[in-house]
Amino acid sequence: MSEGSRLDPWVDAYAARARGMTASEIRALFAVASRPEVVSLAGGMPFVSALPLDTLADTAARLVRDRGAEVLQYGSGQGDVTLRGQILDVMSEVGISAHPDDVIVTTGSQMALDLVTRVFCDPGDVVFVEAPSYVGALGVFRSYECDIVHVPMDADGLIPEALAEAITQARADGKKPKMLYTIPNFHNPAGVTQTTDRRERILQIATGEGLLILEDDPYGLLGFDGTVPRAIRADDDQQVVYLGSFSKTIASGLRVGWAVAPHGVREKLVLAAESAVLCPSNYAQLTVSEYLATQPWREQVKVFRELYRERRDALLDSMEQLMPPGTTWTHPAGGFYSWVTLPEGLDSKAMLPRAIAALVAYVPGTGFFVDGQGHESLRLSYCYPDPDRIREGVRRLAGVVESELEIAQTFGTARVLRDAEGPENPSPNMN
Amino acid sequence: MSEGSRLDPWVDAYAARARGMTASEIRALFAVASRPEVVSLAGGMPFVSALPLDTLADTAARLVRDRGAEVLQYGSGQGDVTLRGQILDVMSEVGISAHPDDVIVTTGSQMALDLVTRVFCDPGDVVFVEAPSYVGALGVFRSYECDIVHVPMDADGLIPEALAEAITQARADGKKPKMLYTIPNFHNPAGVTQTTDRRERILQIATGEGLLILEDDPYGLLGFDGTVPRAIRADDDQQVVYLGSFSKTIASGLRVGWAVAPHGVREKLVLAAESAVLCPSNYAQLTVSEYLATQPWREQVKVFRELYRERRDALLDSMEQLMPPGTTWTHPAGGFYSWVTLPEGLDSKAMLPRAIAALVAYVPGTGFFVDGQGHESLRLSYCYPDPDRIREGVRRLAGVVESELEIAQTFGTARVLRDAEGPENPSPNMN
Repeated sequence: MSEGSRLDPWVDAYAARARGMTASEIRALFAVASRPEVVSLAGGMPFVSALPLDTLADTAARLVRDRGAEVLQYGSGQGDVTLRGQILDVMSEVGISAHPDDVIVTTGSQMALDLVTRVFCDPGDVVFVEAPSYVGALGVFRSYECDIVHVPMDADGLIPEALAEAITQARADGKKPKMLYTIPNFHNPAGVTQTTDRRERILQIATGEGLLILEDDPYGLLGFDGTVPRAIRADDDQQVVYLGSFSKTIASGLRVGWAVAPHGVREKLVLAAESAVLCPSNYAQLTVSEYLATQPWREQVKVFRELYRERRDALLDSMEQLMPPGTTWTHPAGGFYSWVTLPEGLDSKAMLPRAIAALVAYVPGTGFFVDGQGHESLRLSYCYPDPDRIREGVRRLAGVVESELEIAQTFGTARVLRDAEGPENPSPNMN
Repeated sequence: MSEGSRLDPWVDAYAARARGMTASEIRALFAVASRPEVVSLAGGMPFVSALPLDTLADTAARLVRDRGAEVLQYGSGQGDVTLRGQILDVMSEVGISAHPDDVIVTTGSQMALDLVTRVFCDPGDVVFVEAPSYVGALGVFRSYECDIVHVPMDADGLIPEALAEAITQARADGKKPKMLYTIPNFHNPAGVTQTTDRRERILQIATGEGLLILEDDPYGLLGFDGTVPRAIRADDDQQVVYLGSFSKTIASGLRVGWAVAPHGVREKLVLAAESAVLCPSNYAQLTVSEYLATQPWREQVKVFRELYRERRDALLDSMEQLMPPGTTWTHPAGGFYSWVTLPEGLDSKAMLPRAIAALVAYVPGTGFFVDGQGHESLRLSYCYPDPDRIREGVRRLAGVVESELEIAQTFGTARVLRDAEGPENPSPNMN
């Protein structure tokens, strides 16, 4: 519990769910890591400067000038109907067909994640997540007091047999399996992608078990070879709620995401959304809508793909050259992240202060688990710094790992303290 | 339960809290009421066309062009620090002094309402609300399974003695009083304002009972005589969470609101906000910030005040002239709403379809209660239609009330069915 909370006269008045809301211990470190001299391989910030800013500026101005009475007004709780139609067009890329009525627009897909959990999860309900999983999702599930169960993954993504076993185990323990949260494409933080076979098998298991699949797909269009993996939702419109986002294909600062859900679920989500924020911002929504209608958005996505591919290459090549033996990492075919496993005996969280002192930042693996796993791993993001900075960051990081190894070899281990800990709460630095 | 829900295969999978999420029966009517031939005195939409649209368009364009890398990027979960400073300046109008650290920016103040409830309320906790109360707040409290207790008000606002009694009664019933939700200024829907004496007494009671005051103040700057009532929060920074909004002083379509809270509470709110939406939109926040920094925003608030005063006058004058004897209404000194009580025996909800057939719409009083009160009342909004349309709307409404009275006099009563019902979920039509 933080110092503020100890002095807080309201501490006994909070709801039970608020006990799960605690600030990450590593927040203070990230404040330091945001200094310009630090190469941050920690944050998941898209490189929005690659957007055509002049064009977007004109779009925004035209909208406010010509359609101000609409742009600046409350809108529908479900989201703008024209934009919902355009979202169908975007989703056709991942093989999804749906009706505009099936779509709800949200304040970023984080909000959709919150709403689905709000609508489905009672305290104690089991949510299966990948091991590791998105820190922002873990924070949501924890805030609704879910029982979070990690399911192992490998280079081909979530392991279906492990999911089946985890469900069986949960039922044997008298628990109530409610949903599977999965990021099939270019996983955050693991950097891997589910194979087609596995998607089919996972859908089969979920259907058989009556488990809702919450498919989170912010990176689906950012595959570096230009192929777009088919969404699980493309093959089943009843078992899956699909979450999409414009944060990585247009701009994160607009906060426009969406969910596609079966009819009854979508009705509940709209009611929950109205309770949460009344309606999404017309200003942001119509900016997205106008951009999609008037700009070559698919070309811009290609620009982003190329940019991130070059940065991915810079990361992987320099790790290949510089990282000490015993270090391994995933080879992302898209998205923003690679998952690095340190040589035996090193601890990514204990190492972080030393990394920041050496002017490089990452997110320790522990943040992506609720059960204390992840000490040997860390997440590197290549989305924001340019290739030279990435190479410099890896050089610094390799140096830190080497000194840790020396210490470990001298003193037996660098892994000192392993306190039980939960996930860090999501923050824009770690999304 | 709606037809969709009956056919919903997920109906048994929803969380307990989702049972409280049901669509209003009168939604379909409001879809009809949005036709241009209907004079809608139902919606709470601010008249954003009174804004300097060209200036706002230039502001938006300049921001995206010159500060695109920031405007289009993720930001802090607590909100932009410059904007938080400017919010202090806005709140100085209602007598509040605070530190930028005490402020959290949200996606409209609806989101702040949701977050405070999320942080404080376990199922069954008692939330005291005015009778009637804001429909969007009732929806939030219901979705967190709070025990909502209405406290009577009169022309001077919430009655402190009635609050004290309600707390005593709740404790006697073994319940846990958690907070008081109040709209002291230009109440939605009641159109009344708490006197200074009452504010002091309410604060005294809340402090004595350890009850959090959730002070919702979207209309505080819209007093028609130009005086701004002093906020309850101005006299106590520990017992009160204050909610503010730019929806009525700038534009609702931006979705920028805020909360000011004691330190420990604010910490929890930020964590809850990050879980809910990661961060508020920089695009919307920086537009507000730039507008506040470069435009005479206080002058624009005066423009709104004058506009709404003229419309309030049109409403009250025409009701005075046209409404049948036995009809009474409140005389708002600011804000958007007047609360009308029908002659004995009439039912505002039963009357609504006939009103819409006569091309005038309002919100029946039942929507603002969770306990079946409100059949004899309705809310009229004068914020959106121009004065001539308002007069025409009142003429139509007066005609409907007259025919209802005739029916009542012929058949004994027009009040036919009174089913137990909860609050309608908030919708942008009824906020």
